[in-house]
Amino acid sequence: MRIPIAEAGRHAGETVEIAGWLYNLRRSGKIVFPLLRDGSGVLQCVAVKSALPEETFETLKNLTQESSLVVRGKLRAEQRAPGGYEMDVESAEVVQRVAEDTPYPITPKDHGIDFLMDHRHLWLRSRRQHAVLRVRHEIIRAIRDYFDSNGFTLVDTPIFTPAACEGTTTLFPVQYFEDETLYLTQSGQLYNEATAMAFGKVYCFGPTFRAEKSKTRRHLTEFWMVEPEMAYATLEDVKRVAEELVVFIIGRVLENRRPELAVLERDVSKLEAAKAPFPRISYDQAVKILQAKGSEIQWGGDLGGTDETLLAEDYSSPVMVDRYPAQVKAFYFQPDAERPELALGVDVLAPEGYGELIGGGQRIHDYDLLVRRIREHDLPPEAFNWYLDLRRYGSVPHGGFGMGVERTVAWMCGLDHVRETIAFPRMLYRTRP
Amino acid sequence: MRIPIAEAGRHAGETVEIAGWLYNLRRSGKIVFPLLRDGSGVLQCVAVKSALPEETFETLKNLTQESSLVVRGKLRAEQRAPGGYEMDVESAEVVQRVAEDTPYPITPKDHGIDFLMDHRHLWLRSRRQHAVLRVRHEIIRAIRDYFDSNGFTLVDTPIFTPAACEGTTTLFPVQYFEDETLYLTQSGQLYNEATAMAFGKVYCFGPTFRAEKSKTRRHLTEFWMVEPEMAYATLEDVKRVAEELVVFIIGRVLENRRPELAVLERDVSKLEAAKAPFPRISYDQAVKILQAKGSEIQWGGDLGGTDETLLAEDYSSPVMVDRYPAQVKAFYFQPDAERPELALGVDVLAPEGYGELIGGGQRIHDYDLLVRRIREHDLPPEAFNWYLDLRRYGSVPHGGFGMGVERTVAWMCGLDHVRETIAFPRMLYRTRP
Repeated sequence: MRIPIAEAGRHAGETVEIAGWLYNLRRSGKIVFPLLRDGSGVLQCVAVKSALPEETFETLKNLTQESSLVVRGKLRAEQRAPGGYEMDVESAEVVQRVAEDTPYPITPKDHGIDFLMDHRHLWLRSRRQHAVLRVRHEIIRAIRDYFDSNGFTLVDTPIFTPAACEGTTTLFPVQYFEDETLYLTQSGQLYNEATAMAFGKVYCFGPTFRAEKSKTRRHLTEFWMVEPEMAYATLEDVKRVAEELVVFIIGRVLENRRPELAVLERDVSKLEAAKAPFPRISYDQAVKILQAKGSEIQWGGDLGGTDETLLAEDYSSPVMVDRYPAQVKAFYFQPDAERPELALGVDVLAPEGYGELIGGGQRIHDYDLLVRRIREHDLPPEAFNWYLDLRRYGSVPHGGFGMGVERTVAWMCGLDHVRETIAFPRMLYRTRP
Repeated sequence: MRIPIAEAGRHAGETVEIAGWLYNLRRSGKIVFPLLRDGSGVLQCVAVKSALPEETFETLKNLTQESSLVVRGKLRAEQRAPGGYEMDVESAEVVQRVAEDTPYPITPKDHGIDFLMDHRHLWLRSRRQHAVLRVRHEIIRAIRDYFDSNGFTLVDTPIFTPAACEGTTTLFPVQYFEDETLYLTQSGQLYNEATAMAFGKVYCFGPTFRAEKSKTRRHLTEFWMVEPEMAYATLEDVKRVAEELVVFIIGRVLENRRPELAVLERDVSKLEAAKAPFPRISYDQAVKILQAKGSEIQWGGDLGGTDETLLAEDYSSPVMVDRYPAQVKAFYFQPDAERPELALGVDVLAPEGYGELIGGGQRIHDYDLLVRRIREHDLPPEAFNWYLDLRRYGSVPHGGFGMGVERTVAWMCGLDHVRETIAFPRMLYRTRP
């Protein structure tokens, strides 16, 4: 019976078949130890010369890294083996042998990052990359499960967007047949506001695109973002849901992905320490704290990456910063009732210098104010006609946020660059493979 | 206490608050019946003149469609009411009243499809569109749950793809900063083949793009597709998983979305009739059946939309057609061992004329054969260098398929056009709102 390595524990004492690839090979005289991977796990096999036909033993002994093979044998508990089980090989069949003269390019020696990125289609087979992408899958599942079980309807928003709503400088243009230029979405928010008025609570979750010429460890040109939006909601509701979501994700990752975090040598105590209630500070307070720490920020300016790191370092949980100056936020932010120069926005900053995980807030629901803001921001009013309809027909206070998947993965995995958080990263100078 | 309408059943006899929109209003002398929607459901309210302050009663009596309001009152079971509960209104507060001189544009009268599509951001509030998108959400959840609980790892593939692998005629070009042209993905398959060699069983699930100048009821330029890929798999494995997935989705929709199917007046017996094992026929057989039915198809040609409908009409379950002539399939299909002129591909055709739900098959795993096919198809070999690596380093038989979300939704909901299966459809002449 063929089984995945992940299920070895259920078949101890049985003779089974595993189909996989040679991950590593140790030789010790008349015994060889092929380490097999099959995508679900890694299994150490034991091939003893005296117990096998000579051809089989020689084949295994000389097998090249990443050759594909099917082995049969009895499974046995072995505490010292990775995964806790070993197989005593009874027979083996090589599916494709990697040729000696074109060996697998990724060897245990150190490779430069460009080499690894050029071989990303193979690099994904390594334990470390494997672990990162499994944590990513867990995070995505957790996000969907959170919203699906809390009354949100998934309503995906379009990738092709007609209007260049907030200027075209960071938008990617697409030639849409002969005579139209469209742009790739940067955010589903405006559409979410429409669907929130139809469904009450919604989320969209898909790829988004930013043509930023940033070559930092936090930027990709193509990244995945989840964006919830809620009708009849205020900034406080937005903060509550953001906090609940992050706590839920951490819980799931700690519950299901400890082996992967161990492969990544992640200090899990840092994740365990992130607990609700998250610290909440205002932008005013943030500026004072930053100035006391030597930042050159002045009231009215946006927080830079270094500021975010400086602020977050005082806390073991993500910190929520709210009520930014309206001038640093987009046109659609609801102003604070008592201090209209402030926008009812909130950013959630990850600990350990991972920066902004979440940005959101309460949107303007008043038609006249929104029209005024569109004018003040020099935006083309005709592009917003449909968006203004949402304030003509049953407008209500509402809000939501966006959370970037890659930064969340980077934080949970403790990675120093987002390029490893997605299978095939797209950056300023990286578009292949 | 504020509750969503969907939870009214748990609060019968209690005084609660509902925040929503006026969906409809009936007047009957000294009683008015505002029908409230809040995105989670629809609730009939009963406002009795003698029981309310005059101002409240007059406000409700003259309220305009889609005005937003919060009502408070006691919930009472009422079999004749939609949803089974009614509220006796004790107080009400209008959040935003839709002005009489700019009434809500979508009225109970018939509107043309262009008018409705131009007002898609509002049309989504209607019961029918609401029901379709809830079924869509259910289908997407079912797809993810199926793969997540069957050992598949989600590894999303890039939207930005460098090579124009199968010709550029149906690809959308993107200007990537100053000096590069990229294309929007049509399929994650080639990347899936890389990740399947790393994870064994994978799936990607995201938007895909086709610049087809088709103006049919089955085509969108932007649509969502799920694509599983499995290492150590044959055409038979692909067929088994495709069948299991479709059966799983139908089960979930029937289990959780009967009220929505009722709104859509869907004949659910048609869905209940779709059961495993699905009929399996070969392309050879399909051609004979079609010729007997009067189709002009000749052996060697691809099935047209009409052929698909003709074939499917004999079955109550989706029908699987396999082993197509290699010449109508892409370069990467594994040839049939006994008849190499046939490709080991399979299409799954939905009943009732909904066309191809799934297309897939087994891929070529032999390096030399793949190189030959790339040459025969006049494809640029340098663009496939990384893809050929997968045949250099531990190649194994493998396969997978793609399933389009929108056609699946159209079939399950019984819709006659895919444009209603997605919140903001993108078509040849439709890019707004």
